[in-house]
Amino acid sequence: MIKTAIVGATGYTGSELVRLLYNHPDVEIQMITSESRKGEPFSAVHPHFEGLVDHVLQPASAVLETELDMVFLALPHGVSMDYVKGYQSAKFNVVDLSGDFRLSSPEVYEAWYKKDHTHPKGFEDAVYGLPELHSAAIEKSSLVANPGCYPTSAILGLAPLIEAGWVDPAHVIVDSKSGITGAGIKAKPTTHYSNVSDNFKAYGLKSHRHTVEIQEQLSGLRPEPLQVQFTPHLLPVDRGILSTIYTTPIREEVSDQALRKLYEDFYADAPFVRLRKTPPTLKDVRSSNFCDIFTTYDERTNRIITLAAIDNLVKGAAGQAMQNMNLQFGLPETRGFVSLPLNP
Amino acid sequence: MIKTAIVGATGYTGSELVRLLYNHPDVEIQMITSESRKGEPFSAVHPHFEGLVDHVLQPASAVLETELDMVFLALPHGVSMDYVKGYQSAKFNVVDLSGDFRLSSPEVYEAWYKKDHTHPKGFEDAVYGLPELHSAAIEKSSLVANPGCYPTSAILGLAPLIEAGWVDPAHVIVDSKSGITGAGIKAKPTTHYSNVSDNFKAYGLKSHRHTVEIQEQLSGLRPEPLQVQFTPHLLPVDRGILSTIYTTPIREEVSDQALRKLYEDFYADAPFVRLRKTPPTLKDVRSSNFCDIFTTYDERTNRIITLAAIDNLVKGAAGQAMQNMNLQFGLPETRGFVSLPLNP
Amino acid sequence: MIKTAIVGATGYTGSELVRLLYNHPDVEIQMITSESRKGEPFSAVHPHFEGLVDHVLQPASAVLETELDMVFLALPHGVSMDYVKGYQSAKFNVVDLSGDFRLSSPEVYEAWYKKDHTHPKGFEDAVYGLPELHSAAIEKSSLVANPGCYPTSAILGLAPLIEAGWVDPAHVIVDSKSGITGAGIKAKPTTHYSNVSDNFKAYGLKSHRHTVEIQEQLSGLRPEPLQVQFTPHLLPVDRGILSTIYTTPIREEVSDQALRKLYEDFYADAPFVRLRKTPPTLKDVRSSNFCDIFTTYDERTNRIITLAAIDNLVKGAAGQAMQNMNLQFGLPETRGFVSLPLNP
Amino acid sequence: MIKTAIVGATGYTGSELVRLLYNHPDVEIQMITSESRKGEPFSAVHPHFEGLVDHVLQPASAVLETELDMVFLALPHGVSMDYVKGYQSAKFNVVDLSGDFRLSSPEVYEAWYKKDHTHPKGFEDAVYGLPELHSAAIEKSSLVANPGCYPTSAILGLAPLIEAGWVDPAHVIVDSKSGITGAGIKAKPTTHYSNVSDNFKAYGLKSHRHTVEIQEQLSGLRPEPLQVQFTPHLLPVDRGILSTIYTTPIREEVSDQALRKLYEDFYADAPFVRLRKTPPTLKDVRSSNFCDIFTTYDERTNRIITLAAIDNLVKGAAGQAMQNMNLQFGLPETRGFVSLPLNP
Repeated sequence: MIKTAIVGATGYTGSELVRLLYNHPDVEIQMITSESRKGEPFSAVHPHFEGLVDHVLQPASAVLETELDMVFLALPHGVSMDYVKGYQSAKFNVVDLSGDFRLSSPEVYEAWYKKDHTHPKGFEDAVYGLPELHSAAIEKSSLVANPGCYPTSAILGLAPLIEAGWVDPAHVIVDSKSGITGAGIKAKPTTHYSNVSDNFKAYGLKSHRHTVEIQEQLSGLRPEPLQVQFTPHLLPVDRGILSTIYTTPIREEVSDQALRKLYEDFYADAPFVRLRKTPPTLKDVRSSNFCDIFTTYDERTNRIITLAAIDNLVKGAAGQAMQNMNLQFGLPETRGFVSLPLNP
Repeated sequence: MIKTAIVGATGYTGSELVRLLYNHPDVEIQMITSESRKGEPFSAVHPHFEGLVDHVLQPASAVLETELDMVFLALPHGVSMDYVKGYQSAKFNVVDLSGDFRLSSPEVYEAWYKKDHTHPKGFEDAVYGLPELHSAAIEKSSLVANPGCYPTSAILGLAPLIEAGWVDPAHVIVDSKSGITGAGIKAKPTTHYSNVSDNFKAYGLKSHRHTVEIQEQLSGLRPEPLQVQFTPHLLPVDRGILSTIYTTPIREEVSDQALRKLYEDFYADAPFVRLRKTPPTLKDVRSSNFCDIFTTYDERTNRIITLAAIDNLVKGAAGQAMQNMNLQFGLPETRGFVSLPLNP
Repeated sequence: MIKTAIVGATGYTGSELVRLLYNHPDVEIQMITSESRKGEPFSAVHPHFEGLVDHVLQPASAVLETELDMVFLALPHGVSMDYVKGYQSAKFNVVDLSGDFRLSSPEVYEAWYKKDHTHPKGFEDAVYGLPELHSAAIEKSSLVANPGCYPTSAILGLAPLIEAGWVDPAHVIVDSKSGITGAGIKAKPTTHYSNVSDNFKAYGLKSHRHTVEIQEQLSGLRPEPLQVQFTPHLLPVDRGILSTIYTTPIREEVSDQALRKLYEDFYADAPFVRLRKTPPTLKDVRSSNFCDIFTTYDERTNRIITLAAIDNLVKGAAGQAMQNMNLQFGLPETRGFVSLPLNP
Repeated sequence: MIKTAIVGATGYTGSELVRLLYNHPDVEIQMITSESRKGEPFSAVHPHFEGLVDHVLQPASAVLETELDMVFLALPHGVSMDYVKGYQSAKFNVVDLSGDFRLSSPEVYEAWYKKDHTHPKGFEDAVYGLPELHSAAIEKSSLVANPGCYPTSAILGLAPLIEAGWVDPAHVIVDSKSGITGAGIKAKPTTHYSNVSDNFKAYGLKSHRHTVEIQEQLSGLRPEPLQVQFTPHLLPVDRGILSTIYTTPIREEVSDQALRKLYEDFYADAPFVRLRKTPPTLKDVRSSNFCDIFTTYDERTNRIITLAAIDNLVKGAAGQAMQNMNLQFGLPETRGFVSLPLNP
C-alpha cells in the first residue's frame, strides 16, 4: 500500500483527491492536513464525506513525523514552495498541485506570478506532470509539478499540431471557458452565485499566468518561436473547461482525415485522451479523467479549429495528480480510476 | 460473473445502470437493448461512454435467446409489464425499474396510473425493492419492483416514525422537490431549459401517483389508517430529491435525542442511510447511493420535521436496482458501489 | 416631483430600488448613499447602470442636509433603527426595508432578532407596509416598515383563509423556497456558486425570524390563537420565492370554486395580486411586482394547498417599497411600475 | 398611435416584442397572430402575461383585413418570405425578424440556408436593420430585415475597426457564446435542461449561416476582401451573447486610448452602444437593448481583443426591431424603451 498524505484539505483539489484516492486499491490515505481546521474531522469541512472519510485533520508538520510514501500538496500558489523546500531530504514522492514549480525558472515565475520564489532549487528537480508528454521523466521523478487546468486542455489540444510543425507557432489563439471551481472554494464577489449564474464573462485578458505555462510547454516541442493568445472566460457551471483553439496550417495538405491520423498517432498510448468524432461537451468528461478532443479543418478560411474538454478538478488537477502518482510508483496510468463521466 | 442485460438503453435510468454496473466486480454487461436505436453502439446514444461502453444495441427479443443471470428493465410505465409477462419461465432474476409492479394490486394500479394492467399475476410474484424495509423478501425474489424516486425519499424519511407509532398517521405531509431528470430524457416543454432554469414550480398537486405508493408502503408498517399529502416540485437541478416531511407526534416524550436514537436503531443495518447532524443538501448525495436523513422536533409547534435527500437516478433508481440485484445474488448490499458523492 | 434618497446603495435592494424608481414619472432620485463606497459613482458598484445612473455616492449624513420628500432605507437589520431615530423631526416620508420595525414591539424584536433595539418609539409610528392589508394606514403614515420577502408571500397566500375563519389557525404549514438574492450580496460560503448551483437545502428550521412576522400579521386578522410552521429552503435561482402552504378547513363546504371566490373578493382592489388558474412558476413574476396565487382543495385529505409566488427583490422588497411610497403620496399603487415579468 | 400587429406569437421573439411594445407610449398592440394557437388568449401561450395581455390570437390572414400601421414578423426562417410577398401592396411598415431578407441576394441565401427563396424581389426593398450602421436607410424603408443575434454582437464589435481599416480584414476570428433562447422555444434534445445545464459546447463549426451575414455587412464598410471565422457556443444561460473577437492591427500606432477614441467617435450617436472600461458580463445587458463593448490591445502578441455583449432577445431580436420601428416612424431610437438591465 502507498501510504499517502494530502496536505491542504479545505479546498476543492484536496476534497477531489480524497474522492479519487478513496477507491485506489493500492493507496491508503494515512493523513489529511489543514492548518485552519486541524482537529476537526475531514467530513466537517466536506460534509458529503460524512461516514466515508472522517480522518481528523492534522497540522502539516505531522507529515515529516510520519512514515509516508506519497504526499500531495493541495495548497495555494506561493505556499507550496516552502513545503517542497522542507521535504528535500524526505523519502516520499511529491506531487505539487500548485503553480510553484510548473515554469522553467524562478525568474519566469516571478515575472508572471508577481511573487518571490523561496526555493529556486526546486526547478531543477521538478518535472512537469503532463503524462501525455513527459511520462518517462515523471516515472523517475520524486517531485512532480502538476499542470494548471487551462494549460492541460490547451497543451493536449495543441501538442500534436505543434510537434509535427503543421501550424504557424507564432499565431495560436486559445479561447478557454472554465467552470467556477477553477476560482477556488473561497467566498468572494467573483464566486457569488448571482454573479456567476445565468451570466458569462471574459477575464484576465492578455495577462493570465497560464499563458506562459502553455507557451513554455509547447515551445519544448518545436524550435521555432511560439506565441499564444490565451483568453479565459468564466462559465456558470461547477466543473469543466472547454478550450476552442485556432491555428493556421503552414503545410500544403490538411484534411480532417489527416488531422485525425496525426492525433491518433500522437495519443496512441494515452489512455485518458479520447479523440471524438463530434464536438465534446463538458458533461462528456465531468467527474472523469478524460480529455476529449475534436479537431477539424476549415478549407474556406484555411484554419484548424480544435476543441479540448476536461474536468478541471480531475484531469485539470486531482485526477492528473493521481495519474502522476501511478507513474511515480510504476503502476499503470489508469490504476484506481473508477469515476466515469457523470452525465447528466 | 453475473451475466446481465439492460433492457431499454436510451433513457437516464438505462445509462445510469451502465455507469454503476461498469465497476461492479461480479457483473458482466452482456447485452443492452433498444428498439429505437438498435444496431447503433450504446455510446452513440450516450456519447460520454465513447470508448468505455460501445456495445451494439440489441432488440429486446434477444434477451430470451441469450444465457443471462440478470435483467434490468429500464422501460416506461405500461411497457415493462409485457416484458415481465414474457419472462415468466425465464431463469434470470429481474429488477423492474418502472412503476408496473410497485403497488398492491392491478386495481390500485389502474386507479392511479389510468391504464389497464396486462399481467395481474405479476403482483403476486413481485417484491417491493426497498432493501431497508424488505431485504429478506428481496433475497428470495426473482422479480423486484424497484421503488419510485419520490417514494424512496419519503418512505425512508418516515418509516421509523410510522413503525414506532410515534406520529399521527392520518396527518402526514410530504413536500418534495426533485431535479429535472425525474421527468425523463424526452424533450418536451416541461424539460426545456428555459422553463426549468432559474425557475421553480409545484406540479401534480393532489394526484401524483407516487402518493399511493408512499401510502401503501407506510401502511404496511402500522395498522392504523394512514394518509399522505404529497406535493412534488420541480427544481432547476439535474439530479436529486429533497423531501421535507411534516408529522405530529402523538406520544408524550419527543426530543432530538430520542428521534436520533429511533432512526439509528431502525437503520442500524442499512449501509446507505446516513443520519446527518445538519440538514443535508442535494450535492451531499449526488452520484452516490446514499439517502441522507435529518430529523428534528419543534417544541413550539409540537411537530417533527424530517428531511430526506437522495440522488433520484441512483438511490431513486439505478443504484437501488443494483442494491436489489446484490441481495438477489446473496452479495453484500454495498458490493460494487464505488461512486462517491460528487460535490461540487 | 418626489425628491428621493436611497440610503444604502451597495446591496440588492438598493440597486433594485434604483431600477424601479428610474422609470417612475413622479420621482427624482436626488441622492444615493453608501458609507463604504462614498465618492464613487453608483455605477462603479453596479456596473450594469453605467451611463444610466452615475450619481456620486454620498455619505448618509447628507440626507439631513438636503431637501427631500422621500427616503428609502436599504440597510441591514440593526442598522436602520438608528437612522429612523435620527429622522424623527424630518419632513420626508420613510420606507424602511429592514426588519427593524416590522414586529409588534421591541420585546418581540429582541426575542427573535437576538439584538437590542435602540429606538422603541419607532414601533408606535411604524405601519406594516403590506398594501393589500393596510393601505389606509400606509396612506397616513410617514414611517412604513416594508415587509420581509417570505412573509409577503406567506401572508398574501393565507390572509383570505384566515380572515374568513375557514381554516384551523393552529395548524398552518408554510414550506417556502427562495432564490439566493434573499441571502444578500455579500460573498460568504452560503452564497458561493458551487454551494448553490445544482443544489438545494432547507435552513433555519424552527427558528427563522420571519416566522413571527407571519404569525403576528395573520393573528391581526382573526382572534383565535394562530401558529405557523415555517420552513425556508434555498433554491439555485437568483430571484423568486414560492411558498407552498398547507391548511385544514374547519368549515363544511369547501371547493375550488368557493376558494376562488373567497380570494377574488379579498383581492378585488389589489392590482398586484393575480389569482392564477394553474400553479405559478417563479418566472411568471420575475422582475415584476406581482404576487401570483393558486389555491386548491384536496377532498381526499381535507386539506387546502395554496401556492404564492413573488420576486423577492420586487414584491418582496423594492417594488413593495415603491408601492408603499405611492400610497404615502396619494398616488395610484401601480404608478410608475413598468417592469413586466421577464420570462425567460 | 401606431396600430401594430405581431405575426407569430408562440416563440420567444413574439413574446419579447409584446413585453417591449407594452410600454411604448405610441404603440397600440392591435393584433397578435398564431396559426397553431388561434382562438386562445395570448396569455394561455405565455402565462406570465395573464391579466396583462390577453388578446385572442388571430389567424395571420387577419392582418390584411385590418387597418394597421406596423407589422412585426416573428416567424421562422423560410416562412417569413411568403408573408412579405403577400404584403407588397400593404400600407404598413414591416420589420421581419427572420433571416429571410438579411443577405445580399437569393443566391447567397440559398447557398447558406439550403432553401429556395420564394420572393427574390424582397431583397431589393429590404434594408438591413442595424441602426448603428444604416439608420438613414431604415428611416426610409418600409421593409426592414432585422439582424441575427450573433451578427449584431459581432458587427457592432468589429465595425469601427473594419471601417477605419485598422485591422487585417482577412483574419477575423469571432468566438461567440450564446444563451439557449437563441435555439428557440421548441422542445428538442438540444434544449433539454439536462443537456444544457452545467454544460457547454461548440456547435455549427465552419458552417453557421450567421457567418455570411457578418461577412457581408462588414464587407460593406471596406473594399478589401474580408473573411470571418465564426464559432458559436451554447451557454447554460437563458439570454445573452458574448462575442470574443480577435483581430490583428495593420497600422503602426495602436493603444487602448486610440481604440477607445475610435469607438467613441464611431458610436457617438448610438444611444444603445455602451463603451465599457472593463469586460462586460451578460447580466450587464440582460433585458435591455444595450450592446456593451470593451476593446483592448495586446502589445505582446500584436492583437486586438474586442468583447461585445447583448441580450439576444432584445438587442439581438425584439428590441432592435422596436428600435427599427422607431426609425421608420421618425421617432427617437430610444422611444419607449423602459426595460433596464436586470442584474441579478
